[in-house]
Amino acid sequence: MNHDTGAILVLSGPSGAGKSSLIKKIEKEIGAYYFSISTTTRPIREGEVEGVHYYFVDREQFEADIEEENFLEYAKVHGNYYGTSIKPVKKALKEGKLVIFDIDVQGHDAVQKRLADITTSVFVTTPTLCELKQRLNARGTDAQEIIDGRIDVAKREVQRISEYDYLVINDDLDEAAAVLVNIAKAARMKIPSIKINEFVLNWEDIC
Amino acid sequence: MNHDTGAILVLSGPSGAGKSSLIKKIEKEIGAYYFSISTTTRPIREGEVEGVHYYFVDREQFEADIEEENFLEYAKVHGNYYGTSIKPVKKALKEGKLVIFDIDVQGHDAVQKRLADITTSVFVTTPTLCELKQRLNARGTDAQEIIDGRIDVAKREVQRISEYDYLVINDDLDEAAAVLVNIAKAARMKIPSIKINEFVLNWEDIC
Repeated sequence: MNHDTGAILVLSGPSGAGKSSLIKKIEKEIGAYYFSISTTTRPIREGEVEGVHYYFVDREQFEADIEEENFLEYAKVHGNYYGTSIKPVKKALKEGKLVIFDIDVQGHDAVQKRLADITTSVFVTTPTLCELKQRLNARGTDAQEIIDGRIDVAKREVQRISEYDYLVINDDLDEAAAVLVNIAKAARMKIPSIKINEFVLNWEDIC
Repeated sequence: MNHDTGAILVLSGPSGAGKSSLIKKIEKEIGAYYFSISTTTRPIREGEVEGVHYYFVDREQFEADIEEENFLEYAKVHGNYYGTSIKPVKKALKEGKLVIFDIDVQGHDAVQKRLADITTSVFVTTPTLCELKQRLNARGTDAQEIIDGRIDVAKREVQRISEYDYLVINDDLDEAAAVLVNIAKAARMKIPSIKINEFVLNWEDIC
């Protein structure tokens, strides 16, 4: 059975819900994957690394890439562009990798519209808003206005959980990781429509 | 995280594709499950056991059950009724079990319409029609006209694979079982809409 066609796992959910920790925890168990790095025009923040947290480009470059349809999805948030370049995603899919996206509900929507057949989506969140606030404050890395902004976004995004295939409530990290491993392994089994059509066409071959 | 809400795994695919062997192979790995037994009005065949292969009832009983809305789904095929009683399914879901259905594409359609939020569906088939014919003939249990009927049904059903979440090509039983285990484990993680709504409503609680 050929499953080397690649598939997509979308993770959304509030910053502070533990998406990165979860990925780190499950990466050895889920096989070859490519974690998609977004491109943005927002200024680099202290502690951020080019090519790790984001690819940082200027507005001219970003708009040229939009023009050339180089983005799988993009959005403007608070005056800054954020997007996913299509090229590395295509390459990783060709290599049979599980492409993992950490994107917001808008981005999820865009990916579903273009690649629903190979996409599995998961909303990761804290058990409560209260818990999210505590975690964001405890990190102590962000200014209060950034934390407040993240909380506003979280409140809006949580309303759209039902658009996702799965909800993972990250209360206990080990438990949540165990759940996510199962989802990620199954995500790999999604077969592109084009392969399904090929299979159906060839199914009735001659004995 | 409470996942004790039960979920549904629908298996469809030609008789002879190996659904029963697959279930037998994975049953120890997937946790508590309930394999749904269909009810039918067709005569019991040699080797079949009441309550194992089907619940056998007469037409009057079946039609009374339709009247009382006791079926999750039912259909008439070649003049005989086939259906899934809703009561044991509800009970198993309440017990947090994974309810496994071996039903046809019509049945899958009906289940998706009523319980999409907790349903994961898999189409299981042989790599080719040729291989299916060989397997059905090799079993030597069925009359040629029954085999021919199954092949006709298979040809029609394969055309509808794209309605399913996953396609499992049962070429090598061990490989196919490994795939199905992952899918079954993830299937359990589906949370009913009603629980999602409850979660969303309670998420913004007071600190």
